Amino acid sequence: MANLTNGNYEQLVEQITDLVLTRLDDDYCPTFCRADVERIVDAGAERIGIVLGETATAHDWASLIDHTLLKPESSENDIRHLCDEAAKYGFASVCVNPTWVKKASEFLEGSGVPVCTVIGFPLGATLPDVKAYETRRAIFNGAKEVDMVINVGALKSGDDCTVEDDIRAVAEAAHENNVLCKVIIETALLTDEEKVRACLASKNAGADFVKTSTGFAKGGATVEDVNLMRRTVGHSLGVKASGGVKGIDDARAMFEAGATRIGASVGVKIAQEASGIKSNIVAGSY
Amino acid sequence: MANLTNGNYEQLVEQITDLVLTRLDDDYCPTFCRADVERIVDAGAERIGIVLGETATAHDWASLIDHTLLKPESSENDIRHLCDEAAKYGFASVCVNPTWVKKASEFLEGSGVPVCTVIGFPLGATLPDVKAYETRRAIFNGAKEVDMVINVGALKSGDDCTVEDDIRAVAEAAHENNVLCKVIIETALLTDEEKVRACLASKNAGADFVKTSTGFAKGGATVEDVNLMRRTVGHSLGVKASGGVKGIDDARAMFEAGATRIGASVGVKIAQEASGIKSNIVAGSY
Repeated sequence: MANLTNGNYEQLVEQITDLVLTRLDDDYCPTFCRADVERIVDAGAERIGIVLGETATAHDWASLIDHTLLKPESSENDIRHLCDEAAKYGFASVCVNPTWVKKASEFLEGSGVPVCTVIGFPLGATLPDVKAYETRRAIFNGAKEVDMVINVGALKSGDDCTVEDDIRAVAEAAHENNVLCKVIIETALLTDEEKVRACLASKNAGADFVKTSTGFAKGGATVEDVNLMRRTVGHSLGVKASGGVKGIDDARAMFEAGATRIGASVGVKIAQEASGIKSNIVAGSY
Repeated sequence: MANLTNGNYEQLVEQITDLVLTRLDDDYCPTFCRADVERIVDAGAERIGIVLGETATAHDWASLIDHTLLKPESSENDIRHLCDEAAKYGFASVCVNPTWVKKASEFLEGSGVPVCTVIGFPLGATLPDVKAYETRRAIFNGAKEVDMVINVGALKSGDDCTVEDDIRAVAEAAHENNVLCKVIIETALLTDEEKVRACLASKNAGADFVKTSTGFAKGGATVEDVNLMRRTVGHSLGVKASGGVKGIDDARAMFEAGATRIGASVGVKIAQEASGIKSNIVAGSY
């Protein structure tokens, strides 16, 4: 328990206990079960993280970052520039809006850098089959990863079945095409209890990652949220920290808290900072 | 010419002239033609507006306002409350995210208040067929008006054909179901020249309204933008001012500048202010 440094383990257990008790009383979506909740509590006893040591290269850092440009006013030239940077540094992906997936795929051809896009972004307040359709169209245009936004309003209304079914619609569309599915829970809008429920829904729906933020809400990733999300999803899912990551110190803090991917518009800055500090990358539990 | 009070008529003519000259040189989308541009210049000589006089009722004001709630964290209870208010005051519509269209339609059944929703919202950066699919799904669920966001990035890239085709995909899906189509050009992200081009594309694509803002960008409706948009689209389209309308004084200024609809979250406040001031509504040119 010594590595649960932010002192909210008891609070988490209490929240989850409340959740379990509530749901045992309700006609609750049956895919949430006691075993899931027990696994979350168990996961509280260990954290997964990536430790970036002294000799890691800029490329090591870049390989964990989705190089991101989602401003609606971004032009084709902006997207081309982003892709050139991604190919140069070897980022994990470029993350662009659906309208740019085809162009980005062309720009990145042969580079080894995949295109990631966003679904139902940034409000998440559309219908599941619209999100699934958008997913398939983006995949048709070349997307290899999709970052979808949950239905926050349904979560706030206590309708976790709708939240889960919505995620599943996208995850299935992604997985039938061997595409990675990340789930943005938009932590800035959620209570801790809602963050846990959103992560559980993501896991139950078969998502590959949970992700903190769209970057369009009032707040972005925090160490506390990444820590909570990691403890909630356990070992089997990735955690992507996004929104408000300003440089290598922020990125390191996120990895130490349990993140396995960073989404940022400052990827080049982080890679350049990494070149200056000569660090070493070690992945695993600690 | 006397009613062009903001002194930018010459500037507008100059911009449009530049635009025409540029486009006559390019292999430009043929649906933009000289006649369109001439009509805009002609329209500069007159403005259309709604003058709200001393004896108009709260209902008169409400009938020009889309009662709007688009926060992603809005719950079912929030939507129910919005619909109750809309039925009470007789707003032009309620404007909600696609995920709430079905519920809102149920809540408003028999009230005479239609449901409006948003498409490709708020970034507008997805594919035309995704927007068209989202439109049809929202209509299937009960939407009677759709407010779509243009592809701002395509506009910034000079690809006005893509902008127009994107709008047309939604307008056609709407019109084949007798649904009104408004086009959000997101003025805060655009230069004046881009605002004119976006309005032209909307008009050419068959839109019913042009609309200033999503409410999610850094700026909302301004008198100057409403005025420019009205002059650009002429008499045949509506102009909706949205984003940052804080009360009846803002609303009146927008109507005087040429707006024919307001989108606001403060509709009840405006209606209540109208009750206090006993005004009269007169529609027409001036």
